[in-house]
Amino acid sequence: MPQYALGVDYGTNSVRALVVDIATGEELGTGIWPYATGEQGVWLDPKDPHLARQHPLDYANGFYEAVSMALEASGVNPADIIGIGVDTTGSTPIPVNAQGIPLALLPEWQGNLNAMAWLWKDHTGHAEAAEITALAKERREPYLDKCGGAYSSEWFWAKILRCKRVDPAVFEAAYSWVEAQDMIPAWLCGLPDADSIPRGICAAGHKAMFHEDWGGLPSVEFLEELEPGLGTLRARLYAKTQSAGDLAGRLDAEIAARCGLRAGTPVSIGAFDAHLGAIGSGVKPGTLVKIMGTSTCDIMVGEPPEALILGVCGVVPGSVIPGMIGIEAGQSAVGDLFNWWVNLVAPDEAISPHLAPPGERRSGGAGSSRHEHLATEAAKLRAGQSGLIALDWNNGNRTILVDPLLSGLIVGQTLHTSPAEIYRALIEATAFGALTIIRRIEESGVPIQEVVVCGGIAEKSSLTMQIYADVLNRPIKISASAQTCALGAAIAGAVASGGHPDILTAQSAMVTTPIRTFVPSPEAVKTYEQLYKIYSQLHDAFGIGDMASVMKNLVRLRTA
Amino acid sequence: MPQYALGVDYGTNSVRALVVDIATGEELGTGIWPYATGEQGVWLDPKDPHLARQHPLDYANGFYEAVSMALEASGVNPADIIGIGVDTTGSTPIPVNAQGIPLALLPEWQGNLNAMAWLWKDHTGHAEAAEITALAKERREPYLDKCGGAYSSEWFWAKILRCKRVDPAVFEAAYSWVEAQDMIPAWLCGLPDADSIPRGICAAGHKAMFHEDWGGLPSVEFLEELEPGLGTLRARLYAKTQSAGDLAGRLDAEIAARCGLRAGTPVSIGAFDAHLGAIGSGVKPGTLVKIMGTSTCDIMVGEPPEALILGVCGVVPGSVIPGMIGIEAGQSAVGDLFNWWVNLVAPDEAISPHLAPPGERRSGGAGSSRHEHLATEAAKLRAGQSGLIALDWNNGNRTILVDPLLSGLIVGQTLHTSPAEIYRALIEATAFGALTIIRRIEESGVPIQEVVVCGGIAEKSSLTMQIYADVLNRPIKISASAQTCALGAAIAGAVASGGHPDILTAQSAMVTTPIRTFVPSPEAVKTYEQLYKIYSQLHDAFGIGDMASVMKNLVRLRTA
Repeated sequence: MPQYALGVDYGTNSVRALVVDIATGEELGTGIWPYATGEQGVWLDPKDPHLARQHPLDYANGFYEAVSMALEASGVNPADIIGIGVDTTGSTPIPVNAQGIPLALLPEWQGNLNAMAWLWKDHTGHAEAAEITALAKERREPYLDKCGGAYSSEWFWAKILRCKRVDPAVFEAAYSWVEAQDMIPAWLCGLPDADSIPRGICAAGHKAMFHEDWGGLPSVEFLEELEPGLGTLRARLYAKTQSAGDLAGRLDAEIAARCGLRAGTPVSIGAFDAHLGAIGSGVKPGTLVKIMGTSTCDIMVGEPPEALILGVCGVVPGSVIPGMIGIEAGQSAVGDLFNWWVNLVAPDEAISPHLAPPGERRSGGAGSSRHEHLATEAAKLRAGQSGLIALDWNNGNRTILVDPLLSGLIVGQTLHTSPAEIYRALIEATAFGALTIIRRIEESGVPIQEVVVCGGIAEKSSLTMQIYADVLNRPIKISASAQTCALGAAIAGAVASGGHPDILTAQSAMVTTPIRTFVPSPEAVKTYEQLYKIYSQLHDAFGIGDMASVMKNLVRLRTA
Repeated sequence: MPQYALGVDYGTNSVRALVVDIATGEELGTGIWPYATGEQGVWLDPKDPHLARQHPLDYANGFYEAVSMALEASGVNPADIIGIGVDTTGSTPIPVNAQGIPLALLPEWQGNLNAMAWLWKDHTGHAEAAEITALAKERREPYLDKCGGAYSSEWFWAKILRCKRVDPAVFEAAYSWVEAQDMIPAWLCGLPDADSIPRGICAAGHKAMFHEDWGGLPSVEFLEELEPGLGTLRARLYAKTQSAGDLAGRLDAEIAARCGLRAGTPVSIGAFDAHLGAIGSGVKPGTLVKIMGTSTCDIMVGEPPEALILGVCGVVPGSVIPGMIGIEAGQSAVGDLFNWWVNLVAPDEAISPHLAPPGERRSGGAGSSRHEHLATEAAKLRAGQSGLIALDWNNGNRTILVDPLLSGLIVGQTLHTSPAEIYRALIEATAFGALTIIRRIEESGVPIQEVVVCGGIAEKSSLTMQIYADVLNRPIKISASAQTCALGAAIAGAVASGGHPDILTAQSAMVTTPIRTFVPSPEAVKTYEQLYKIYSQLHDAFGIGDMASVMKNLVRLRTA
């Protein structure tokens, strides 16, 4: 009798559920539910462009809605679902009370943005992140050694510290703070209180500076020096962690009943979308998985011992696959960079409405046909033909410079430079950024034999994939599943249930061979080698060299 | 009884005639005639984007058409016109036969692009210009001392040499080559042969390397070494020159009859549009006149002795006002740079048709409303607010780097950067370029007490003018006449006729006080001082410093 696992992928704007055959990896049904609250699921503050929150109610409702759709579409008997896995965005910490209930769900905090989930892309804690970096350096703490040397405004402690300062009442009311990746499994299992919520190493290690080397989370002394009163929280967080595939608990009877699932179905420890996406793409030692969407997340696993990789934002044992070192790097703007350009140069009215069929909305909105138009023009250009080169830093540089205050640059424009030429130059810039990361990882002694790409851009833009193959001078394999994150979550669920003994075994059964490979073209490779030298010259000069003051001074004048 | 002068301004796309009262400067009538042949007057070659020619027939027809319109509009008795002046674009040399007739007008050369006028913006002689520069340097000739150290593809000798190579039959058939500024007065006066055509110092000194210090034009030896056979042309060119305001001859009876003008009316020596535009704007020692259109031309006059100004493209005695040193500098792309951006980001369809009333076509076409839209948004920004800075080199750098292979650069973009922010950054970039020229001129010992601006941008863009006032930290005065070039030509005509004894006297009668002054805002000045430091850092690094290879390597890969 076939057995199925359920993977549930919580994204920025929607939740996706996937029913998978654990023996074959066959994907039998998908359900997608756009969040009902906020702007496409994101709560914004018109007065502060850095703020981005989510309502935990959307997480619960999203489970019911997406899972019901997926089950119905699959035709599978819900009772044959043997395990459940969950992935989420992150770092997305949520303040909870002692019972483990998100404050936002309590009447007294209704509508308070600070009581909601602090979404990964919330940057309100920018100054606080800089303080954390400065204090760790000043005290010569090892905390930043595993996250590239700088703490990010997107991460756990920067957000909590920010909350304490701007809304101390929420901070006081919060018994603990729980990442969305841990909150949702805890809710599914009906765990009775905050102290019993198991925590996943993925968020802990990559975002909360948790590591066994220094006894878990940063010390009370460090936190108190950062902000008096912050240190007391440490005892109400966690001292140990588990990995995706470990058992978080068993499905609550009431939730199970609403979906027709079996009560007590094993639920896996959660992890971030990129990490489970890497599992769904077949990550293993020597394989770099690139999850390419609005930004890019690079995931690898390495055999111990841990490598120290300068400027790479996370090197965490067990964060992807238990027993292996998880390595995470990333680029802050990839699809976002292309979208910026498309929206800048091709406003809605510029494309005839008939070019954007109504059905297209599902695969990326009205922007798609505009992307296609520019991509068609850009594909006609050979490497180097535009005479342009760009730096891909419009949203700062995550890896390898770890500097959010860097900005974009483009050079080589003439009076004939076209929108498509700039579009291509921006794609090339992200490819050069990707190459810079690969070179750093390999220089640090971690060889890369294979590059697998998944995510929206992998599916949609063969132009981008060919440019990456040519710039990286490696075949680019496209992951077979269109839902690699949900597939990875299902794999974690299958392992948690005992349906497979471990992640690698589950992968070999459930991950299909890449559907397509983009092969480097020798002529383009030659030109890109030369262009990459120019990129490196600009990268080093503006990132850390003689021109490094330019972008900083511009930011200073902008914010003056 | 009032006396009138007629100024005729030959532009790139049209010719303008203006009837002016020589006692008051009152402008009584204007006539504008778009050229009838080519694309808006410019003959193009679909196979070579560098080629741009004009048909001499348009010059003759343009005189009849525009002058008739102007006379009719003025209500003036044509017999009361006492003098005629002409300005043209340049360097725009024309091959002529021994009778002084342009080859393009002879049946045997009909339709041959190389037999037409080689318009200023024809860049087909790019390689030839580089050869001239290299040979002058190799032979340690002084020829480039007065034109910034590098010969341009837009200039006289580069075009003739190019013609000799690509169409030797035209070169052989040409008894001489005559600049449009000299051709049109010669035609008006019905001069009998090529040898009797008087030549103006403006084109000779600024574009043909003519200077008394080395006995006029470059030596036969130099020309022969450049290209065997080129040296023989020298004897059929000219050995002396005159200035605008000097008498070129008297109006031919037949031409006079067609327009109702008096036969024998004095005709002035011609000059370039920018130089006579400067006169029409009241140029005098200490006054910098900026003629701002698609590109910018900066004109000054200085008392002798000649200053040597490194990187300034022309320092020529008498080229503007007899007895004074004419100084010409320029920026290769100003309005063209703004147009590039507007056309890139705001295609026709992006602006509702009702925003562009039909009457607008006369003042700049459908682009105007798009410029206005971006300008309105850009005007809301304070200095520095965009966080952007750009180099204004999309068409190379004429002054002070004299390098056509430089290209554009923009830095500081985020994912929120808007089209209007970039539009403003490009305006600011040209203002920083203008400041760089002013600083170089003043460093060379030529003080600037006043800046007067004329041309299309001066009239149309108060945003640009305010930014220039703030960046230059000087009041920017807007020239009163909307037709400063034609007015300057009329002034030359008035002087040639004896209606005024000299240019300065004529100016004091005929040039009205500036109609508007833009005053620097102290706060913006402070911010722009800091931004200019960043501009200079980029200018020096990419122009001549550590990053100077970047743009050159990109050009190499583009043209590979």
